[in-house]
Amino acid sequence: MSGFVHFVSSGPGDPELLTLKAARLIKEADAILYDDLGAAPILEDLKPEAELVGVGKRAGRPSPKQEHVSQLLVDYASQGIKVVRLKSGDCGIFGRLEEETTALRAAGIPFDIVPGVTTASAAAAAANIPLTRRMTARRLQLVTGHDVTGALPEQLNLAALADPMATTAVYMGKRTFAKMVDRLISAGMPPETPAMLCEGVSKPEQELTRSTIRDLADSLEGADSTQPALILYGPLAD
Amino acid sequence: MSGFVHFVSSGPGDPELLTLKAARLIKEADAILYDDLGAAPILEDLKPEAELVGVGKRAGRPSPKQEHVSQLLVDYASQGIKVVRLKSGDCGIFGRLEEETTALRAAGIPFDIVPGVTTASAAAAAANIPLTRRMTARRLQLVTGHDVTGALPEQLNLAALADPMATTAVYMGKRTFAKMVDRLISAGMPPETPAMLCEGVSKPEQELTRSTIRDLADSLEGADSTQPALILYGPLAD
Repeated sequence: MSGFVHFVSSGPGDPELLTLKAARLIKEADAILYDDLGAAPILEDLKPEAELVGVGKRAGRPSPKQEHVSQLLVDYASQGIKVVRLKSGDCGIFGRLEEETTALRAAGIPFDIVPGVTTASAAAAAANIPLTRRMTARRLQLVTGHDVTGALPEQLNLAALADPMATTAVYMGKRTFAKMVDRLISAGMPPETPAMLCEGVSKPEQELTRSTIRDLADSLEGADSTQPALILYGPLAD
Repeated sequence: MSGFVHFVSSGPGDPELLTLKAARLIKEADAILYDDLGAAPILEDLKPEAELVGVGKRAGRPSPKQEHVSQLLVDYASQGIKVVRLKSGDCGIFGRLEEETTALRAAGIPFDIVPGVTTASAAAAAANIPLTRRMTARRLQLVTGHDVTGALPEQLNLAALADPMATTAVYMGKRTFAKMVDRLISAGMPPETPAMLCEGVSKPEQELTRSTIRDLADSLEGADSTQPALILYGPLAD
């Protein structure tokens, strides 16, 4: 008998930003595979016999290989149980979802996906501003600050990223933002374009810092990226 | 005594895709201003004395002017009560949020914003695919199919929109998609780029139709846009 995997988006961190569906599935799960970062408060209401399996990065320890996580997921589901694979934010956005769904398909294990609140939405809400603006920011784009090697991607679509009429959300971009801004400014984006560094979004330690792309780049030069952060830039509302 | 307004994102339609916070605030509200489309199942668990005020479009009737909605919001909050302004999807994304927050600021009424699941996330989840892909779709962009006049915006950033390495979600774009695709193809986007028409996302009547940008444009030519729909295009996963 084959099990079932629910890919469940846990949202940006505040347990109240779980969806009702996510909360229900977590409560019903036989096993939960989670990434460590900030998941603890979300995992308080479980079946007593539920198995909790941390598969994410931990400070000071190498993170498990993606193939290892996919294999674990297949192994748990193959026991014929109901598995929740918890992923932060919305699991379809920079969540490495496809690597794991491909492994499940290959193993013939059924799954579904529960969407959630992505961090860009929560960051803007925390700042009391919209992500899109009717006349000035009609396009919203989400990118990451690094490619698979951890560096800023060589191929950036600068016509898209330096567009003054778009709001851009850079996920995991703190370490590479200085380099990215050099390229944005070379492509013609004004250095005084508004920017906001959003750390610990929706968590007790949340900090939002308004700046400009140039000043934020300067302050992040050589930054160590231990705390997860999101950067918004573009014609941000006041 | 001044009231308070919570802008609450109601998600794509499935009541289980409300966040726990949204569900709590709806239950605690003294008055709820909602847009009609599909909100009914979300509004089942209210205080008995809560006032329900529909302010959105209704078939066959002109929709209230935005200024009228903003004024209503100010009027309700000025009674010193707790008001929920419910908006579908994530209210910071194409939700005309700023018009209403500006009115509240001018009236000195405090507010906050509760983020939610945007329809693009729910559409991809319903199709069992991610919105971003590690090697092939590293940028996700969200746009609308029309400007304030209801037509396809004259100024489109085609370098952004015709980028084969991005996933694009077009909100409210059914009526103008044929025109948009003409411009995408003129800008070099392959006509066989995958596309998906997503209607009634997360609701019982949900329909997802896979196609290509060219074929979808042909099938939508002259379409009447009564049912809300989202279109995804780009290197969509299988």
